[in-house]
Amino acid sequence: MTEIEIHGTVADGFETVREEFTAAMAASDCGAQLAVRVDGRTVVDLWAGDGVTGDTLTGVYSATKGAATLVVALLAQDGVLDLDEPVARHWPEFATRGKDRITLRDVLSHRSGVIGVDGGLTADELADDRVTARRLAGQRPYWRPGTAHGYGGFVAFAIVGEVIHRITGRSLQQIFEERVRAPFDLDLHLGLPEALETRYREVLPGLADPEELAAFWTSVPGPQSIPGIGYGLNSTPPLDQVAFINTRRVRALGQASAAGVGSARGLAAMYAAAVFGLEGDAPLLKPDTLAEFAMPHSTGTDLVGGPRSQFALGFEAKGLRYPFLSARAFGHAGSAGAEAFTDPVYGIAFGYTRRRFSFNWSYPEHDRLAAAVHRAAAKVDVMRG
Amino acid sequence: MTEIEIHGTVADGFETVREEFTAAMAASDCGAQLAVRVDGRTVVDLWAGDGVTGDTLTGVYSATKGAATLVVALLAQDGVLDLDEPVARHWPEFATRGKDRITLRDVLSHRSGVIGVDGGLTADELADDRVTARRLAGQRPYWRPGTAHGYGGFVAFAIVGEVIHRITGRSLQQIFEERVRAPFDLDLHLGLPEALETRYREVLPGLADPEELAAFWTSVPGPQSIPGIGYGLNSTPPLDQVAFINTRRVRALGQASAAGVGSARGLAAMYAAAVFGLEGDAPLLKPDTLAEFAMPHSTGTDLVGGPRSQFALGFEAKGLRYPFLSARAFGHAGSAGAEAFTDPVYGIAFGYTRRRFSFNWSYPEHDRLAAAVHRAAAKVDVMRG
Amino acid sequence: MTEIEIHGTVADGFETVREEFTAAMAASDCGAQLAVRVDGRTVVDLWAGDGVTGDTLTGVYSATKGAATLVVALLAQDGVLDLDEPVARHWPEFATRGKDRITLRDVLSHRSGVIGVDGGLTADELADDRVTARRLAGQRPYWRPGTAHGYGGFVAFAIVGEVIHRITGRSLQQIFEERVRAPFDLDLHLGLPEALETRYREVLPGLADPEELAAFWTSVPGPQSIPGIGYGLNSTPPLDQVAFINTRRVRALGQASAAGVGSARGLAAMYAAAVFGLEGDAPLLKPDTLAEFAMPHSTGTDLVGGPRSQFALGFEAKGLRYPFLSARAFGHAGSAGAEAFTDPVYGIAFGYTRRRFSFNWSYPEHDRLAAAVHRAAAKVDVMRG
Repeated sequence: MTEIEIHGTVADGFETVREEFTAAMAASDCGAQLAVRVDGRTVVDLWAGDGVTGDTLTGVYSATKGAATLVVALLAQDGVLDLDEPVARHWPEFATRGKDRITLRDVLSHRSGVIGVDGGLTADELADDRVTARRLAGQRPYWRPGTAHGYGGFVAFAIVGEVIHRITGRSLQQIFEERVRAPFDLDLHLGLPEALETRYREVLPGLADPEELAAFWTSVPGPQSIPGIGYGLNSTPPLDQVAFINTRRVRALGQASAAGVGSARGLAAMYAAAVFGLEGDAPLLKPDTLAEFAMPHSTGTDLVGGPRSQFALGFEAKGLRYPFLSARAFGHAGSAGAEAFTDPVYGIAFGYTRRRFSFNWSYPEHDRLAAAVHRAAAKVDVMRG
Repeated sequence: MTEIEIHGTVADGFETVREEFTAAMAASDCGAQLAVRVDGRTVVDLWAGDGVTGDTLTGVYSATKGAATLVVALLAQDGVLDLDEPVARHWPEFATRGKDRITLRDVLSHRSGVIGVDGGLTADELADDRVTARRLAGQRPYWRPGTAHGYGGFVAFAIVGEVIHRITGRSLQQIFEERVRAPFDLDLHLGLPEALETRYREVLPGLADPEELAAFWTSVPGPQSIPGIGYGLNSTPPLDQVAFINTRRVRALGQASAAGVGSARGLAAMYAAAVFGLEGDAPLLKPDTLAEFAMPHSTGTDLVGGPRSQFALGFEAKGLRYPFLSARAFGHAGSAGAEAFTDPVYGIAFGYTRRRFSFNWSYPEHDRLAAAVHRAAAKVDVMRG
Repeated sequence: MTEIEIHGTVADGFETVREEFTAAMAASDCGAQLAVRVDGRTVVDLWAGDGVTGDTLTGVYSATKGAATLVVALLAQDGVLDLDEPVARHWPEFATRGKDRITLRDVLSHRSGVIGVDGGLTADELADDRVTARRLAGQRPYWRPGTAHGYGGFVAFAIVGEVIHRITGRSLQQIFEERVRAPFDLDLHLGLPEALETRYREVLPGLADPEELAAFWTSVPGPQSIPGIGYGLNSTPPLDQVAFINTRRVRALGQASAAGVGSARGLAAMYAAAVFGLEGDAPLLKPDTLAEFAMPHSTGTDLVGGPRSQFALGFEAKGLRYPFLSARAFGHAGSAGAEAFTDPVYGIAFGYTRRRFSFNWSYPEHDRLAAAVHRAAAKVDVMRG
């Protein structure tokens, strides 16, 4: 273990969170940020390692889906989107090859079977949700829609975005900017402006010795398998997740499944704005909307991601992920190790980023940091009374 | 192991059941009764330990659901209940917050998502199915109805009972008394009369040393999680299952999910009356009704109870629980260690009670007792011819 | 390990497949054949052991379902069969006891719950799909149709065949003969002609010492359980799979779930004819038909066969079975150890037979042979350009 300098502050009662963060950084010098709000108030703001400051922006990968789903929830709350209408009602080209009855709810709960295309999507295509959507329109689902679920990691929100575009004439990214990011000046971007590039720090690949790496890759399904397609390995060349977000064009377009760029502060503040309200504003989401999007929709074996998946609607059902949290907790993690969620019952909004992937996509510090935050928040809650 | 005196009798050919019962009591002095009928005839009638006699009545917890489901089956058989109608057709107040299409079949197979309420139900509220029903009416389901299942351990039959009340003007408990309990003088009560209180023996808490208990509770999901809500831990104070049934008001009201009071004889006789007929009467349930209610409806991962759940319709699918039994076996166990089931193919009706909980809700003697009974019954069957 | 002589040939680049076959035969002298085509061309043609030649015909058990499903796919492609119509629309007698809405798709994906009959089907009855169909018509499903799946190993295609008979006036077996077997002179028979009996080699029982056998059978569910019914153990006497196919009448009738007789060459050639075309003909199945039948339909826990089942439509989803294959791979194995599949993406058609059962139905050589074939085919593919 190396000695890593820990920066930032924690509120009274959250000292144990700083201890867990310190222990996590000692175990892995990954360049991380942790920000936590309780009932909207910042109680943890920490960072450490590898060129990272509290202001650093980096790729949050699928934590992006939390931002994208917040847009969906707002539009559903407004009555603009009906989650149970077929996608093809607004996007007729999607109705081919057994996809005519697939709904937004199916897509958001990863039950559509549309997780990629035969022959693969190049990184260039994946960078642009509208290009991806055109390719997906002609594709047959990879399983019978509704009979199983599988994580559509890189493409699900291209479908969602296309429906939003057809209905509203605007992109999911534009709506996020106007209704969520700009009003609260959040450090979380679906489309990083050129002016903020100086704050971007490149994502770094996972470190492993050659034997570890070889063992990992022999355990990974083939590029033409359902998981391979879901993770973009069936294109030529296979998708390189690190290179993807480190490409300026990808960051500029900010595709809504995996190309968000932000900070832990931005992630925590977004969930706080959605659920608890920021700067005196009402929460963006009403209780019924919150509850609807937090309900588990797809659990059990995921044909892409493996056993024990825990999907709510667009979000992950964080109460199933972290059993100490409430049934109402929701959020979304990302493959480089970002984690973000909110627990409306315990008042928590949690944001965590990493610059450096784990080579096997395993992030044990998530469990320990979330548990420490929950314990501290529950204790503060008791004291408040 | 302590020496425990075993009381009662077994028929010829069932000596091995007595041996298994003796071994089980040596392993755990829990105050137990075991009664078994084959084709209606009593072949095992045993009891031992901790102030228990063959006449003792104690809390059978969710074995109560077997009695409640028998009422449902009778009403469905009569054409009074249609299991596939929405609950809200007869109980309009239930139609709120995404519950309008939930059917009785969904509730009976634990697919409704309605397993408790935000903020919790107090023991006083849980004691009364009608009060519980009123609280549930306004609740949003804890997962998308139909997409998963989770055991509604303390509230499922409050919903069922409310529908029965709206349709028939009578309570599930009254119908059980009139059509099932009284005609056969069964020692199984949904609402224990004051006069029988002298035969009631209080349920006892599980024994464990502090380390065992601490380890168990750290493995248990939090009070606000889906399992926590399902087990009533989100109320203030959290539901104390032991204290619950040891409260006279709870026993007097006999809520239909978990507050039945009875004996092993009562449980075995109820299943015998339902399937084989008692005292010369025809079986209460016709073959088609039996088969319908014995069919597995919800298997796999239970969001409340964990992996490998095995639910038929209201009953548990005991052929999945005990692979030596037939596909037609059904019944219901309870959290203090009661177990009750019938196997129409092998002619078995089985009742078992315990006064004392196991601290971790694990009852390995169930498997051994059920296997011994099955082996003996199958052998007798062969000899009969 | 015994020294086994390996016969036959492999094409350049497939030497490693011969090595794996040799290793498999050294581990178990089971009398096996392996035939592989890539893009229709034979690249592996091997056999070894126990009286088996390249021309030997033996029982392929459920690999038969691949042939039967090919007939279904052809009729669906022609518009003769609608997979989503209720079975009872064409076969009204099937509509009893909760089966009125069961579709061919439910049956083909093993979701119907109709896996046998109370009291069992004798081997004589099981030999004849039409007799089996008559018995199934009156049966109640063994679980709520659509809520779970379970492998209908011996009866599923009796239902399918009955629908085909009602619609076309011909048997599934006749259609297979005319449209698939005869045109390509395939060594794969649903109904083995008397004239070919000289090439039939009897299936042999698995070898095990008594302790192994006893341990295996104590782990097997009872004869009246759902798995017991699915495997024909609830008849008197229980179904003996070895004796079944070694009975001339069974081979002559060629019931479509499990009584096919063939060779590895026949299996590989059938899949090649279906997907890649043989002898200059177009493939039998169009791309959309292929894709439809290859889509996973039932995954997760199988109430008959246990966890991790992987069913497409009639076929098994071989991309889930062998993660190195593509999402489009499909086929069907059989209980004596036959394995057959095609991978449209990698150009593979694979056939493997065994004369001798493994006593515990475990065939680890499948994984190694399939992997070796995939590696060799992928390498050849790369060299082709």
